[in-house]
Amino acid sequence: MKAFKCIVAYDGTSYAGWQRQKDQVTIQSEIEDAMKKLLRTHVPIDGSGRTDAGVHASGQVFSFHYDLPMPLKSFKTALNRLLPADICVLEVEETVSDFHARFSAKGKTYAYHIYRSELRNPFRHRTAWQVYGPLDVERMRMAAAFMEGTHDFSAFMASGSSVKDAVRTIYEITIDTVDHDEEVHMTFSGNGFLYNMVRIMTGLLVEVGKGKKSPESVKTIIDSRIRSNAPLTAPAQGLFLMKVHYSENE
Amino acid sequence: MKAFKCIVAYDGTSYAGWQRQKDQVTIQSEIEDAMKKLLRTHVPIDGSGRTDAGVHASGQVFSFHYDLPMPLKSFKTALNRLLPADICVLEVEETVSDFHARFSAKGKTYAYHIYRSELRNPFRHRTAWQVYGPLDVERMRMAAAFMEGTHDFSAFMASGSSVKDAVRTIYEITIDTVDHDEEVHMTFSGNGFLYNMVRIMTGLLVEVGKGKKSPESVKTIIDSRIRSNAPLTAPAQGLFLMKVHYSENE
Repeated sequence: MKAFKCIVAYDGTSYAGWQRQKDQVTIQSEIEDAMKKLLRTHVPIDGSGRTDAGVHASGQVFSFHYDLPMPLKSFKTALNRLLPADICVLEVEETVSDFHARFSAKGKTYAYHIYRSELRNPFRHRTAWQVYGPLDVERMRMAAAFMEGTHDFSAFMASGSSVKDAVRTIYEITIDTVDHDEEVHMTFSGNGFLYNMVRIMTGLLVEVGKGKKSPESVKTIIDSRIRSNAPLTAPAQGLFLMKVHYSENE
Repeated sequence: MKAFKCIVAYDGTSYAGWQRQKDQVTIQSEIEDAMKKLLRTHVPIDGSGRTDAGVHASGQVFSFHYDLPMPLKSFKTALNRLLPADICVLEVEETVSDFHARFSAKGKTYAYHIYRSELRNPFRHRTAWQVYGPLDVERMRMAAAFMEGTHDFSAFMASGSSVKDAVRTIYEITIDTVDHDEEVHMTFSGNGFLYNMVRIMTGLLVEVGKGKKSPESVKTIIDSRIRSNAPLTAPAQGLFLMKVHYSENE
């Protein structure tokens, strides 16, 4: 059977995350259900990884193996007609036969969006975290520099996670102010991320930006490997899976 | 009793419009219900006008008369805590005793947002209209110039409307491309708008932008006063009530 790689964008607000779960509406279940209507058979899909309830994606990737009975463009159009308006399949392409969205992934890029108004913004509350008060972006950048590189990120892993090897490489963290300083947008690129890692990193960076922690404390916290030293987990709604990185031929 | 003027923003997606209706969740009912919880009595509020189901506001105005037993700032904070995340009261101020959000209004400004991607965007579908294909903004501006000024806008009034005098003055229409031409944002300012008028004007401007109608045809359509000459009503989700204009002392 042929292998297909698909890129999908979704507003995760209304879903219990990516992963199919019993009695829950998830992104995966919506896509698999739509594909079942279209292909008249259940074709399981594999995501590059789970996204939590309320987390969004501009570039989540999933793969499946099947002999599609229609051109790719028709498949994509028909699938999008069957999907709800908050999920859209952006690209469908045939790829190497052993491709697997999760196991073939070489890395990921996430974004985290913060908006800074005193009053909540009805148009931002689904897709950004409201952080009011002074936020020193230069301090946040200094702190982020300590996170870049290869480290044991145990301090940034949600408790209860069963991962044994917490060593990951962060290639780059960018922090930008946009919309006349009304928003702060961050991106995190790395070879892999632990459960809740981006949200915990974001929480710590905001603490540094507020002056509650020093940029240098980030190094101490990483070295400690103790989760309780980075206690603040930024909320799900500001997080976006932007891109999943693969080898060039995939 | 004292008179208060309030400015409120809302994402109208989940509501059956502004106006309180039996067995429907509306913006007005949410605000009145929250005020009832806070003040322990029903205080009726008057909006500057109705917004339809799915229409948004950045600056809707409502008024009420009551002797508030708390400072305005506390009232606003408490009210916002009781309101859902897609409604936010931005300002509360005491005003002249005979103020009425609707009858005192001197004019309004609306915005209409269009996004232009071929595929629907999960993050824009609640608050913009997807229009794919070439759109000649310069032609749209030429067409909009024919709408400015004082005209009988019967051709731009939803059928079934009972308004007798359809003469209104449009002060200004602006049409801008934003986000590297991915979006077209329009604003409409005038002394008053008929039911669905902005959405019908937008529909016609898009037809001109697509080359289906000439800019000059707008003048003919206005002069005809016949609704069926401007048949396309742009969908609710792209429309925002931005500002309601009052006299300076109000």
